Amino acid sequence: MNNHMKSELNVLKYNGNDLLEASDITAVEYPLTVYVDDEEFATIVCSPTNINELVLGFLASEGLIRNADQISSIEIDEHHGFAYVQLKIKQSINKEFFSKRMIGSCCGKSRQFYFYNDANTAKTIMSKHQISIKECFSLMKQLQECSIDFQQTGGVHNAALCTNDTILYYFSDIGRHNALDKLYGHILQHNVPLKDKVIVFSGRISSEVVLKISKIGVGILISKSAPTTLGIELANDLGITVVGFVRKEKLNIYSHPERIIEANHLPNIELRKK
Amino acid sequence: MNNHMKSELNVLKYNGNDLLEASDITAVEYPLTVYVDDEEFATIVCSPTNINELVLGFLASEGLIRNADQISSIEIDEHHGFAYVQLKIKQSINKEFFSKRMIGSCCGKSRQFYFYNDANTAKTIMSKHQISIKECFSLMKQLQECSIDFQQTGGVHNAALCTNDTILYYFSDIGRHNALDKLYGHILQHNVPLKDKVIVFSGRISSEVVLKISKIGVGILISKSAPTTLGIELANDLGITVVGFVRKEKLNIYSHPERIIEANHLPNIELRKK
Repeated sequence: MNNHMKSELNVLKYNGNDLLEASDITAVEYPLTVYVDDEEFATIVCSPTNINELVLGFLASEGLIRNADQISSIEIDEHHGFAYVQLKIKQSINKEFFSKRMIGSCCGKSRQFYFYNDANTAKTIMSKHQISIKECFSLMKQLQECSIDFQQTGGVHNAALCTNDTILYYFSDIGRHNALDKLYGHILQHNVPLKDKVIVFSGRISSEVVLKISKIGVGILISKSAPTTLGIELANDLGITVVGFVRKEKLNIYSHPERIIEANHLPNIELRKK
Repeated sequence: MNNHMKSELNVLKYNGNDLLEASDITAVEYPLTVYVDDEEFATIVCSPTNINELVLGFLASEGLIRNADQISSIEIDEHHGFAYVQLKIKQSINKEFFSKRMIGSCCGKSRQFYFYNDANTAKTIMSKHQISIKECFSLMKQLQECSIDFQQTGGVHNAALCTNDTILYYFSDIGRHNALDKLYGHILQHNVPLKDKVIVFSGRISSEVVLKISKIGVGILISKSAPTTLGIELANDLGITVVGFVRKEKLNIYSHPERIIEANHLPNIELRKK
């Protein structure tokens, strides 16, 4: 457990009978302003751990880089909350363009939704790697066991890269997108092979989460939370198996069941919106 | 309960023994692209309800407007997810500037953090309105009773404007910031007097949430979730009473306890970071 992620402070606690001054553990929220080639690019509000990984993963998620080699240096001013990134090949960073919505053609899948940067970097996952339902439960249990920060502060999300058996790397943040970006940054830093890996996650499976998983390049996403409709549609489009609501002995498979060993034997079902 | 907020789809459910095709209710995630004076301003990913309120509250939160009269028209293309806003007085929208981090002076409170748009619009709350602990519990119970969407979809946040006794207006969204923006938009549309009101909320109390509450102009925020350190610091700065972790018979008071009737009798305590 990382001490930078939480802080002790005084509160007034009402325990059902009395109001007493007491000490409480609260999640630290830390503003990190990222400069790219001397220009202010964005401010991320995050937990102040694994800042290098976060910056790397964030820039990859935003489509500014595709691998760690494209960065010539990252300098962190941790005290003031600044990260100064120099790219090897300078780009004119057209932020306006990166965050513009891409309007698909009228025909085709009407609900598809991407930003321009997503359309350039999200990739369809072709991996044939499979996992069993039992392994999904076991990985979720492992994630919960290593995340006591949440229980203390009520406010930290976790993302982990795993084999079918065990958690390999594990990152936490008050922001669920940041937890995934830290994991993405670590994968880029170490060129981690992804063919036989799955991602286990504590947060909701929104469109943005699914787009991040596809950029990272992993085919199986397991979460204790629920997906959104748009998250499921994008997962169908991008070839990602979404397993959600993993709680106790129950779970739901929302997309691409062919990667779940037990579902592979069932006739193919149409998982899209009724 | 609003039918636009959720959608029925087929999933594979594992119930502990069998894997069966079943129907599931999922939260709808809807991209809404906001144009201001014919220029693309932002895309909000939201629940497709109360879109007028959302657009109005979002633009006020972003500091583009201060009241509903500054807008000459809002046209919504609900099918494609576009909102076209015309302002009465055209501004050059310098988005770059709006989202730039404001660097405070070296001395003074070192942890203060605002974006430029926040520094222009966040206001210190001077209200002397008070509430009792019993009323906090009762309002949270009312919020939970009207939000069965969350139980069905596992993914909707709620924000309500209340008197001490009862909920007046109540908005839901998959995004906790959007739920607050819808509430803010409604308040602006109807010029709701705020002096004796409190906001009850389901989501985490981050810096962004506290800044929104201060822009709305309400002095008491009650949430079932936890605050972050930066959220508490900003609440101290901006004169907002934060009551969090309201669960069953327990709650915590994190800032400005003088507005909680029972805490008003206690000696003043220092609630900041130890």
